[in-house]
Amino acid sequence: MAKGSINVSVENIFPLIKKFLYSDHEIFLRELISNGTDATLKLKHLTSIGEVAVEYGNPKIEVKIDKKGKKLHIIDQGLGMTADEVEKYINQVAFSGAEEFLDKYKDSAKDSGIIGHFGLGFYSAFMVAEKVEIITKSYKDEPAAHWTCDGSPEFTLEAADKTDRGTEIILHIAEDSTEFLEEARIRELLLKYNKFMPIPIKFGTKEINDPEFTPATTTDKDGKETTEPHKKVTVDNIINNPNPAWTKLPADLEAKDYNSFYRELYPMQFEEPLFHIHLNVDYPFNLTGILYFPKMTNDLNVQKDKIQLYQNQVYVTDNVEGIVPEFLTMLRGVIDSPDIPLNVSRSYLQADGAVKKISSYITRKVADKLKSLFNNNREDFEKKWDDIKIVIEYGMLSEDKFFEKADAFALYPTVDGKYFTYDELVEAIKDKQTDKDGKLVILYASNKDGQHSYIEAARAKGFEVLLLDSPIVSHLMQKLESSKENITFARVDADHVDNLVKTDEEKISKLSDEEKVTLEDLLKEVIPSEKFMVQLEAMDSDASPFMITQPEFMRRMKEMQQTGGGGGMFGMGHMPEMYNLVVNTNSALVSEILETKTKKKQERLITQSLDLARLSQGLLKGEELTNFIKRSYELLK
Amino acid sequence: MAKGSINVSVENIFPLIKKFLYSDHEIFLRELISNGTDATLKLKHLTSIGEVAVEYGNPKIEVKIDKKGKKLHIIDQGLGMTADEVEKYINQVAFSGAEEFLDKYKDSAKDSGIIGHFGLGFYSAFMVAEKVEIITKSYKDEPAAHWTCDGSPEFTLEAADKTDRGTEIILHIAEDSTEFLEEARIRELLLKYNKFMPIPIKFGTKEINDPEFTPATTTDKDGKETTEPHKKVTVDNIINNPNPAWTKLPADLEAKDYNSFYRELYPMQFEEPLFHIHLNVDYPFNLTGILYFPKMTNDLNVQKDKIQLYQNQVYVTDNVEGIVPEFLTMLRGVIDSPDIPLNVSRSYLQADGAVKKISSYITRKVADKLKSLFNNNREDFEKKWDDIKIVIEYGMLSEDKFFEKADAFALYPTVDGKYFTYDELVEAIKDKQTDKDGKLVILYASNKDGQHSYIEAARAKGFEVLLLDSPIVSHLMQKLESSKENITFARVDADHVDNLVKTDEEKISKLSDEEKVTLEDLLKEVIPSEKFMVQLEAMDSDASPFMITQPEFMRRMKEMQQTGGGGGMFGMGHMPEMYNLVVNTNSALVSEILETKTKKKQERLITQSLDLARLSQGLLKGEELTNFIKRSYELLK
Repeated sequence: MAKGSINVSVENIFPLIKKFLYSDHEIFLRELISNGTDATLKLKHLTSIGEVAVEYGNPKIEVKIDKKGKKLHIIDQGLGMTADEVEKYINQVAFSGAEEFLDKYKDSAKDSGIIGHFGLGFYSAFMVAEKVEIITKSYKDEPAAHWTCDGSPEFTLEAADKTDRGTEIILHIAEDSTEFLEEARIRELLLKYNKFMPIPIKFGTKEINDPEFTPATTTDKDGKETTEPHKKVTVDNIINNPNPAWTKLPADLEAKDYNSFYRELYPMQFEEPLFHIHLNVDYPFNLTGILYFPKMTNDLNVQKDKIQLYQNQVYVTDNVEGIVPEFLTMLRGVIDSPDIPLNVSRSYLQADGAVKKISSYITRKVADKLKSLFNNNREDFEKKWDDIKIVIEYGMLSEDKFFEKADAFALYPTVDGKYFTYDELVEAIKDKQTDKDGKLVILYASNKDGQHSYIEAARAKGFEVLLLDSPIVSHLMQKLESSKENITFARVDADHVDNLVKTDEEKISKLSDEEKVTLEDLLKEVIPSEKFMVQLEAMDSDASPFMITQPEFMRRMKEMQQTGGGGGMFGMGHMPEMYNLVVNTNSALVSEILETKTKKKQERLITQSLDLARLSQGLLKGEELTNFIKRSYELLK
Repeated sequence: MAKGSINVSVENIFPLIKKFLYSDHEIFLRELISNGTDATLKLKHLTSIGEVAVEYGNPKIEVKIDKKGKKLHIIDQGLGMTADEVEKYINQVAFSGAEEFLDKYKDSAKDSGIIGHFGLGFYSAFMVAEKVEIITKSYKDEPAAHWTCDGSPEFTLEAADKTDRGTEIILHIAEDSTEFLEEARIRELLLKYNKFMPIPIKFGTKEINDPEFTPATTTDKDGKETTEPHKKVTVDNIINNPNPAWTKLPADLEAKDYNSFYRELYPMQFEEPLFHIHLNVDYPFNLTGILYFPKMTNDLNVQKDKIQLYQNQVYVTDNVEGIVPEFLTMLRGVIDSPDIPLNVSRSYLQADGAVKKISSYITRKVADKLKSLFNNNREDFEKKWDDIKIVIEYGMLSEDKFFEKADAFALYPTVDGKYFTYDELVEAIKDKQTDKDGKLVILYASNKDGQHSYIEAARAKGFEVLLLDSPIVSHLMQKLESSKENITFARVDADHVDNLVKTDEEKISKLSDEEKVTLEDLLKEVIPSEKFMVQLEAMDSDASPFMITQPEFMRRMKEMQQTGGGGGMFGMGHMPEMYNLVVNTNSALVSEILETKTKKKQERLITQSLDLARLSQGLLKGEELTNFIKRSYELLK
């Protein structure tokens, strides 16, 4: 039996890194700037605990393009490395310098925000460079080192004359990667990945008015004033904001700071966010961030994927699927957490305990914020309801914990602009809208215009009518009916108003039984039975003579199928629409139909009445509508 | 100056592979089965060129779960390895065996479908296993070898007594990966990644009726027949189809083969595809595949991402963004190409020359297929038009090459069910629909029901009215107007019918100029000027008395803004709706309005006429509709 050690063939490690390390070549810049940031934060930490007696100062990281020389420079003013350290950290691939550092200064380093991936990221430079140089001078009193490697495993290491502390990486950009010598491309990458990194990043210079200079104003003999031109000075162009709002304490921020940070995140977004939620937790995981509720529309898909995920202020992705519960992916903002595993599959994420905790923490924070917004300024919350309801309703449907909490702030608006909580709603309607079996009937409309005449009829009875028009509301009603006690939802056009909330009261019909039979026969001759089921009802004499209704159950099942998700019976979506035609036997028009002697006139009365009833349900269309209009013009003459 | 060689620290390579190699741990199974397939195909190749004198036979790959022993076995009957080869291929990480093999047998191997990634994939086993064993016997006359490694770089290698050719990989599944000991999970993975791999994969066994056994039938004394039970035999359960339709020649396949392959790809899809396109190209890139046109709806988003990408029959992804032009991502099917770089960024893909060629090849093939379908069976093509138009119209908008080719098959349906090509349309309408300036006016409706009365009016004049109801059709019209000569599109309700195609013909008005002024004054008192611009027109006396129109330009700009994309002027979407009210001065009703003496009756005539006009444009809603209906019931009495 032989024993041995697996040999990683070095000749093949570079192509490997190039191919597998990152699918996106542009990542190299993020990695190199992360390393520079890392080296700077380490220095800061060591000086702050007195381990190192050098001046920390105001270090920055500089990115410089040398287009002619086809070089890209990344220069930091951090720890620097001695020749020995280069040997150790650079020449030993996958030897994680940061890990060793963290081991040594474990407790004190934890909170100093040191980025944990050192060592390997550096090699991503070879994805875009044919040759890489490192010129580095340690904070220790040792000569600077100059390392050069052309992507083969061979390197050279010699002394250099660099005197200022820090590391300069020089990438000799390869022929197929010259895009990374373009100023616009580098600017784009810096703004994408490094916009909020904690060390200032210099990219070029800019001219500003000299702040130390006040232009003199002289007055000539005519009294005309002349101000001399402002003196310009050239200063570093700092491309990032090293102290983004989410890294600060909520107590140190005002409303305008949150709004201006929103503008920083989404410069092309013109609308103000409705409100924000500042996330801040240390235990059992580390997470900071700010989430914003933007104005929502009913199109759920277009608004997703706006939340950005960072790790220690380094941009990672804008796909937070699995980390943020799905209903909250419609929000915007930033989440920053070193505890979210990267480069892992979605299914793994969903099973990961830490990620689950993060997800439920975010859900809880959002619920708490909504509750406090509601409690602190109900009027304002009501105003915003239409813009946020889709998120809340979706959350109530998909997360049971959120459903429970939502009772405290979920609103049920009525067609006349009142907003009830669930408990208030029950209180308001229980007297008039409890039916003979003790069931509370919650009436609603889905379209104020389309169901206007039905809403009017219900309002006239003193009923409250909710306006529920979200695309997923039928699923939500189903959920409420099964989790609240003894309630049922009914749309105002589900039946005629006296039947919506059933009472024991008997209605008196003006018509005798014989007249009813005559009327039914007359109606049957004109009204197509495959479309309408005629239903004679003794209603108030001034209620509509004809009226079309559609039973709640069937309609809702169909709607639920259309918006997806379970609940609807299979195939229900393909059932033909079926309506009831309610004929008010107590109306004057019905009496007239019965009394009219000529068949033709009788028919015209019924047809026109049926058309008017269909019109009020939005069911008269196309040729039938055209014919109705022609007929009506004639009736006018 | 020092020189040296970069040392890849072996201690760290395993965590590295675990972390970076694949983001999805489940990939290990695909990789191991690919290796087994590879080894089998290599053997096939070597025997076929006479290099190796062994029987190829009917090799398969077996996957076996040992739940109790917490082991997963993958066993192939391929080339096998000698101890030296294990040393060379396994112990030297990233030493690509396949590359060396391809170098040696370059030309003859190219077409034998050998998978090009050997060596590294094996190590993905350590993503899920705490210990891995290889027991392998080469086709060469050498003893079998047994390699064991627990994930540290130390391994052992000893002789084994395996006598049959091939390689068995044994994974000792790690504590955190026990999901891979579940039969259902492994089956799921095999069906996801290996469903169409070229070597049969055995996963368990199943019972079938013994094909060699015919059950005897005996007749008892009452003449009653009894058939003895069928004899069962246990056979291998082969989970994949090694010869999927796309690897065959189109000439060897019939329509039913394509349909049954569609069912194999989408077992949950009940509708038949409309037609297929078989892709097959060798040069300048290698690509095979079958694309299907499914029935489409207007919701563009839900139907995307159904095309599966394979490499040499190994499933890679169902995200073909960048490879297939966007308008074709609504199709379904399979693309198999070794020439599509994997693990690269989308932006890289889009810039890659080979990928661009693939994308335009697919576009051309689709256009050619559509053309031949149209030419070979126009009637059938017309029937399918509604289901495919969204793809074709989207393609015409987004790909100029496709736009040019589409003239040969893009159809323009009319409201009465005729289908014109563009040239046929021009021929059919040029006599009646060329206006006084020589411009061809193409009339269309977007909704047969909603614009019924306007369509009727245009049809009565002998005009053809197209039915264009796709969500993106306003963009397409814009494109046609700017690329075809001297044409313009106008919706039937853009003006009253005599003005849609302007002629020099003068209309004679029944009203004197004085009467017109009186009429205008009367109308102004009742009709809100902020909503309607009154326009008196001398039309046919039997045309509608009142009619509402909306100018083409404004309406279309608003629509284009709503469906996104350029074209609309900024902010146009927020402009209020503005309509013209065309009043037919030659109608009997207008005469009656003028002749009526009482103000009240005049007002009622105007209000009711305006409401009827609004009704025919779908503009009468809510309270106004309810009032109209009440008023109409009263007029009935």
